[in-house]
Amino acid sequence: MQKHDQDFIRRKNRITVFELIKNSSPLSRAEIARLTGMSPTTVSRIVSELHSQSFMREIEQITSSVGRKAVLLQVNPRSVLSVGVEIDKSSIRIGIVDLDGKIISDKQMERAGNEDALITLERIAKGLLVLLEQEGLDKQNVVGVGVGLPGIVDYSTGTVLFSAQLGWKRTEISSVLQKLTGLEVAVDNELKVKALAEHLYGSARGSKRSVLIGFGSGVGSSLIIDGEVYRGETNSAGEIGHTVIDPNGILCECGKVGCLQTYIAEASLIEQANKVKPITTLEELFQAKNNGDFWAANILDRAMTFVAVTVSNIACMYNPDTVILSGKLVERFAEVREFIAEKCMGQFVWEPLRGTFQIVYSTLAGDGVVIGSGLLAQNLFLDIDRQLEQADHLTLNH
Amino acid sequence: MQKHDQDFIRRKNRITVFELIKNSSPLSRAEIARLTGMSPTTVSRIVSELHSQSFMREIEQITSSVGRKAVLLQVNPRSVLSVGVEIDKSSIRIGIVDLDGKIISDKQMERAGNEDALITLERIAKGLLVLLEQEGLDKQNVVGVGVGLPGIVDYSTGTVLFSAQLGWKRTEISSVLQKLTGLEVAVDNELKVKALAEHLYGSARGSKRSVLIGFGSGVGSSLIIDGEVYRGETNSAGEIGHTVIDPNGILCECGKVGCLQTYIAEASLIEQANKVKPITTLEELFQAKNNGDFWAANILDRAMTFVAVTVSNIACMYNPDTVILSGKLVERFAEVREFIAEKCMGQFVWEPLRGTFQIVYSTLAGDGVVIGSGLLAQNLFLDIDRQLEQADHLTLNH
Repeated sequence: MQKHDQDFIRRKNRITVFELIKNSSPLSRAEIARLTGMSPTTVSRIVSELHSQSFMREIEQITSSVGRKAVLLQVNPRSVLSVGVEIDKSSIRIGIVDLDGKIISDKQMERAGNEDALITLERIAKGLLVLLEQEGLDKQNVVGVGVGLPGIVDYSTGTVLFSAQLGWKRTEISSVLQKLTGLEVAVDNELKVKALAEHLYGSARGSKRSVLIGFGSGVGSSLIIDGEVYRGETNSAGEIGHTVIDPNGILCECGKVGCLQTYIAEASLIEQANKVKPITTLEELFQAKNNGDFWAANILDRAMTFVAVTVSNIACMYNPDTVILSGKLVERFAEVREFIAEKCMGQFVWEPLRGTFQIVYSTLAGDGVVIGSGLLAQNLFLDIDRQLEQADHLTLNH
Repeated sequence: MQKHDQDFIRRKNRITVFELIKNSSPLSRAEIARLTGMSPTTVSRIVSELHSQSFMREIEQITSSVGRKAVLLQVNPRSVLSVGVEIDKSSIRIGIVDLDGKIISDKQMERAGNEDALITLERIAKGLLVLLEQEGLDKQNVVGVGVGLPGIVDYSTGTVLFSAQLGWKRTEISSVLQKLTGLEVAVDNELKVKALAEHLYGSARGSKRSVLIGFGSGVGSSLIIDGEVYRGETNSAGEIGHTVIDPNGILCECGKVGCLQTYIAEASLIEQANKVKPITTLEELFQAKNNGDFWAANILDRAMTFVAVTVSNIACMYNPDTVILSGKLVERFAEVREFIAEKCMGQFVWEPLRGTFQIVYSTLAGDGVVIGSGLLAQNLFLDIDRQLEQADHLTLNH
């Protein structure tokens, strides 16, 4: 048997015990052994590990029917905390996130658009310590840090491959922030962590398979299956913005012809409008349409059709139970929301899939990325596969 | 703690032990207890369960360093057998499939295109018993039956919702065949089981995430993640044939405009050709192109472009490590294979995804559906989630 397999089983047992106590507490050690089939020795070892990390607390002694004393265990609700960080072009937000996906305290900082990655990370590391101190916490109380940002992220190495918004390219995040804070760090695209947050604690709560579609400077989607981001081979799953939607269409900046995002990314809509009239915002474009400008109606009617096609194509590929729409184009303008409510399911979605999913909007709004990043760090702490991949340079008991 | 959770843990332990022995045998009971952290009692119970079902055999006694005797256990390679059934318009094939995805014996039968489902299933039940008898086996040696067929299948209830090819509509398969054979039955779309077979034992062996794309009377795809079919909410994930690829395109029989399959399904290509010349097969269409008929070149050049777009869109959505191409259009004609080899990755696939996946062709060919159906039944036997869903009407020890 390989060492990897042994580690795997050891960690699986640890998670089984943790989740059992989380979901069914209070429980005694003896009950855990009985329920899991583990030996009392194994159970004791795991409980004392969790205890030493204060993830667990003993709540009372009971006397069983045969007269033996047993201590009941419970997960310490505020002990499994993580830090969620949202990095954007002009702001940074750091939050402490608990096991229920609540931000118990947070801190906002400004960021200069061209700020060097190292400086940003140093400021985050410092801000994080200040925030913990304010809350009377220290690093031992935190299982890790999650970072969400716009851009293409190599999740497995914790590197930002490219972020136009932040001006970063091939930038190591996890290893650097880990050195600065002494905490485990996971980094991911903001859409992925936002999807995770909405799936677990937002508009898609209770969903088994949700997809968040983000209509913004590009168009992307993120599939969450049973509380885990589906990443694919290079963390690029869900790049629906570069699926070809019209092989005779507009050339995309990626060099292909007819990519979906050439029709509905904000920048594309504004660029199209500028062929007729100089405008700079979606608001102006909608205003023009409402003023009766037919060219604006042409652009926006087509955009709405493509929004509906996007939802339909997502449904065909992922067959989710919930589609979460996010981004200014779909969230802010009443006529788009009406169009989606009235036409999307009935006219555009493939008939066998009608009614198999709900279309919802974000309920976590501006908190989604911080919460999702915090949850990402918690998942990292519990995730076996990732831990195995990192087994060489990861110590569980930080 | 809910009963479901207890069942879950019990079955998880059972699978842990089974897979440990399968992958690391020979092992003694004591080693299993040490490696899994389970109590000796739990290990003994599970081993004797597996033993009584003859999934396991004792191979030799060893004497450990402290002088105690221990029996080494091994999975009986030929004991975990299942039956794979392929139902097609005009033929039925039944095979006995072992743990390594090999067909150890099979039987072919003809089928009248309009044969009633009950008659087909009765013939399968009878044929299956004859086949087992021929091999000196009985039903106790078989963990279950998997059935693969063309059509839309409700996997969770084992019902064919619609199959144009078989002429069936809302037809219960699993429950009926289960009554007829006394064996667990799973039924799925042929593309899904074929993908499973190629992923586990065919051209995508060793892959973590493969997608099989089938170009045939329709166009479909099936994503396999770590040896499990990704089904989605209603077993419709992968219906790429009904993603919209051209919102100004041809009306599809589903009522939507511009569905991918209107461009590359066999019937569509032949229908298009018939506007110019009466032909009935793809071969004739390729022949016409090779004879210099420009209309045939127009149809086929466009079809090849759409094949490449399909691969590219699949890569964007699923980010797989392997794409398996199947179906006459892509497998049989040299110029299509050349086009794919020369143009697909370099010209059509989104640049960041180039080289992140391999494009391969089926290696199991005609055996894929029987093998995949057999594997489906084996997965059913090992699959916790499914077993829990069915806990009320499923007995593990049939």
